[in-house]
Order: sequence, then C-alpha cells, then structure tokens
Amino acid sequence: MGRWEPNARGRLEEAALELYGERGYEQTTVAEIARRAGLTERTFFRHFADKREVLFGGGTLLEERLTAAVAAAPGSAGPLEAVAAALDAVGPLFQERHERSRRRQAIILAHAELRERELIKLATLARALAGALRERGVGEPAASLAAEAGIAVFKIAFERWVGEPGEADLRQVMREAFAELRAVTAGAPGP
Amino acid sequence: MGRWEPNARGRLEEAALELYGERGYEQTTVAEIARRAGLTERTFFRHFADKREVLFGGGTLLEERLTAAVAAAPGSAGPLEAVAAALDAVGPLFQERHERSRRRQAIILAHAELRERELIKLATLARALAGALRERGVGEPAASLAAEAGIAVFKIAFERWVGEPGEADLRQVMREAFAELRAVTAGAPGP
Repeated sequence: MGRWEPNARGRLEEAALELYGERGYEQTTVAEIARRAGLTERTFFRHFADKREVLFGGGTLLEERLTAAVAAAPGSAGPLEAVAAALDAVGPLFQERHERSRRRQAIILAHAELRERELIKLATLARALAGALRERGVGEPAASLAAEAGIAVFKIAFERWVGEPGEADLRQVMREAFAELRAVTAGAPGP
Repeated sequence: MGRWEPNARGRLEEAALELYGERGYEQTTVAEIARRAGLTERTFFRHFADKREVLFGGGTLLEERLTAAVAAAPGSAGPLEAVAAALDAVGPLFQERHERSRRRQAIILAHAELRERELIKLATLARALAGALRERGVGEPAASLAAEAGIAVFKIAFERWVGEPGEADLRQVMREAFAELRAVTAGAPGP
C-alpha cells in the first residue's frame, strides 16, 4: 500500500465510529480500525495519536474556523454577537454530518473518559474564542464571559440537535438557544 | 494514634498544599502528606482516594450548598437570579480561604491533569444547578443555559479573585461579572 491514501483520515474516522458502535469503544483496537478502513496501523498513527483522538480530530479545524469568523465579524458586532456569528458560520460543518455526529455523541456519552476529553475540547474552544475577541479589542472579563456563554449555547444546542431527526437545522437550534440565553440573562441581578 | 483525629481532613489538605508548593505536585507522595499532617496513610485514605482528590475534596459540599440555595431562592427569582443567589450564598466558603484558594489555584494551573479535573468539577456543578432549576419548574434549555452561564461567571470571577489582594470580596467580583454577562448578552442577535 502506498504512502498516499485518498481520504485516509475520513476513512479511519468512519471505521472507528462503526467499530465503536458495533463492539464498544474499549473492545476496539487501532489494528482493527486500520483493517476496517483498508489501511495500515502506520497510516492510522500518521493521522491520530490513539483511538480516542479519532473522535476529536475535528477540534483544530473547528477552532480555526471559529476564530477566523470572530475576526471577520463586522466591527459593529458586540462580543456575543461575534461569537454567535462564528457558531453560525461553522453550523454547516456539522449539518452535513448529522448522522455521524449522533453516533459520535452516543459513544462519548457512554464513557467518562470521552466526556472529559469533550469538556477539554470545549474549554479549549472557549479559550480560543476569548483570545479572538481580545484581538478585536474586547476587554476582560467581557471576552471570556462572551466566549464561555457562547460555548455553553453551542454545547446545549448541539446536544438538542443530535437528539432530533435528520432535518433539524443546527443553526436554527443555536439561534433559539442564544435567544433563550438572552431571555434568561435579562433577569439577572445587578451589582 | 487513635482512630479519631481532630480535623484530620483539614490537616491533610493543608499539608498537601504545603508540600505541593514546596516540592511540586508530582514529587509529593501520600506518605509524605500524612507524615506532614501528623497522621497515618490509613487516615489519609479514609478521607481521600488519592493525592489529586485532596485538592477537590470541597466539591461535594459546594454542590450541596449551591443546590440548596437554588431551592431556597424566592419563587419570583428567574433561573439566572436563582443561580446568582446560590453563588452569592457560597461566597463566604471561599472568602475565608483566600490564601489557600490562591495556592490551590497556582498548583492546578501548573498541571494539565488537575486543570482537567477542575473542568469536570465545574461541569458537575453546572449539571447539579440545572437539576435544581428544573426542580423549581424551569424548563429546558433555560435551566441548562442559566446553570452553564452561572458557572462561567463563577469560573471567571474566581480566577480574578484569586489573583487579587486578600481583601478582595469574591461576592462583589461575582456580582460585577453577572452585570458584565448581562451587558454582553443584551447585544446578542435574536432567532
């Protein structure tokens, strides 16, 4: 097998999801994932550090897209608006993978170790968003608060969306969650 | 040494913080912590599962106090108001331990493993708060959004507070952060 494998990464992700669903996450080995994908273990390790990371490979791309979208938001946008625009911009990344997102979520929810890794991923995204807001001149704590609030909206909207039928629109679910956050926050006490 | 040790838990926590500060977290053993506290390893393990958990022993008490305070908030309080009241109620738990909180934070920030454990603790608190809000009749996603937003405020305010001089008032810092969250959220786009 040659060194160059068309879409090796996507094939490994798909094979891992299949095997985790069929046999369970713990029972699946890297060797089995590679075999199912028609690739070698060597190729696997060129793309992923271990079998856990196959589930989190999209984190870097997501972070890049989110921070770029925050930077590209209109100058008039407030911090949470910029975060909302960024989440809106990445919606299609997930929309076309609704079924895959659903299978991934089921595996993650079933394993404490994976839930923890997901928390780390979300915290990393929040930190990156806060940094992108500071680049726009937003001060602290506004930047961190907007970033954390935006990631909370994303987390909750995403969980709703994966539980809904395939036609559900993640962007619409996120927009509704932002509106709900605004309603909930409007009643908060002052200093 | 008898089985009953006055304030064994607090002595172990203090000894652990001292040793982690002096020698580093990795280099410190449970045997050393017990010795510094004037206690046995057996006593240590009656209170904590391992040397990491000495730093997170307050999580259960915090969760109990927060959920009780959400339940006790006036019926007229909105979901984020109830969460803000709960955080206000636990402020004194930390206020009297400002110096200890600062030392603990420095150790946690220096170790990825401990930062991850802290994220899990905060996620657990958010889940407990959301549950307490649902008990009050708050629907979803409002309950989870208010809980996550409240924990974001707590996290950011706590980080500010530990970095400030001993006289800083955590409750005041949290109230300012809630006001900032409200300001940031007021500009969010509608659905």
